[in-house]
Amino acid sequence: MIKIKSLIRTIPDFPKKGILFRDITPVLKDPIAFKNVIDAFQSNIPAGIDKIVAIESRGFIFGAALAFNLGIGFIPVRKSGKLPGKTIKSKYDLEYGTDMLEIHEDAIEKGDKILLVDDLLATGGTALASIKLVEMSGGIVKKYFFLLNLMT
Amino acid sequence: MIKIKSLIRTIPDFPKKGILFRDITPVLKDPIAFKNVIDAFQSNIPAGIDKIVAIESRGFIFGAALAFNLGIGFIPVRKSGKLPGKTIKSKYDLEYGTDMLEIHEDAIEKGDKILLVDDLLATGGTALASIKLVEMSGGIVKKYFFLLNLMT
Repeated sequence: MIKIKSLIRTIPDFPKKGILFRDITPVLKDPIAFKNVIDAFQSNIPAGIDKIVAIESRGFIFGAALAFNLGIGFIPVRKSGKLPGKTIKSKYDLEYGTDMLEIHEDAIEKGDKILLVDDLLATGGTALASIKLVEMSGGIVKKYFFLLNLMT
Repeated sequence: MIKIKSLIRTIPDFPKKGILFRDITPVLKDPIAFKNVIDAFQSNIPAGIDKIVAIESRGFIFGAALAFNLGIGFIPVRKSGKLPGKTIKSKYDLEYGTDMLEIHEDAIEKGDKILLVDDLLATGGTALASIKLVEMSGGIVKKYFFLLNLMT
């Protein structure tokens, strides 16, 4: 088992001064590390998951590999104005002001059991907004996977 | 074999009046359709591909599933200002003005054989910019996969 943590680069002052940015791209470049991450997610999946909901845009990478490997549907949560169909919207707080996430209103069926996927959990704002989107769609979030937890 | 084309929705006047937007999200929601797409890509891969380079952000979805299934590295090409490490940049034309794509300068090694992945080919601007990024990095684009070709 490769130490995934050792592959994650910390880049200071990105995207602005004072922020320590965690760069997960070396994990993606290393196929064994990427496989280990997907395998680790997969061995912790609750029974009966119907769909994967992945958060734009690095969440797409882990979510798509997992959805493909499990043979279940992939649903994107996107930033405002990117999804072309009718959407449900949920606001979340930024350091200054708010932003919005969206999901297609026909993406989830009532009672769908959802696995939510993103690359990292920082303030939890996008996570909470995504959970709301699933719930407003009639789905149930059974589990939330992310590679890196910065909240602890 | 599911007819992938029948799943792609055309949404008029998105993101602005006069544009017919091709919505590929129904393909992703249907696990058999998604698998058929990845299988079709996979059966046409030239020998000896070293890495997949996928274009933000829908290209990430197809590129990640393919990279995972092939067991090769995944490299993201992102819009300007998203990649935290040192990058190589390439401009492309928009309807009005220009935009920029970036790749980490250490993502590709000299002589790497690259498979480029995106969801659709429209004007070809991002495709050309991405090919330039691979070439400036010392790689060779052996094949370019996209689900939908709007240039014909």
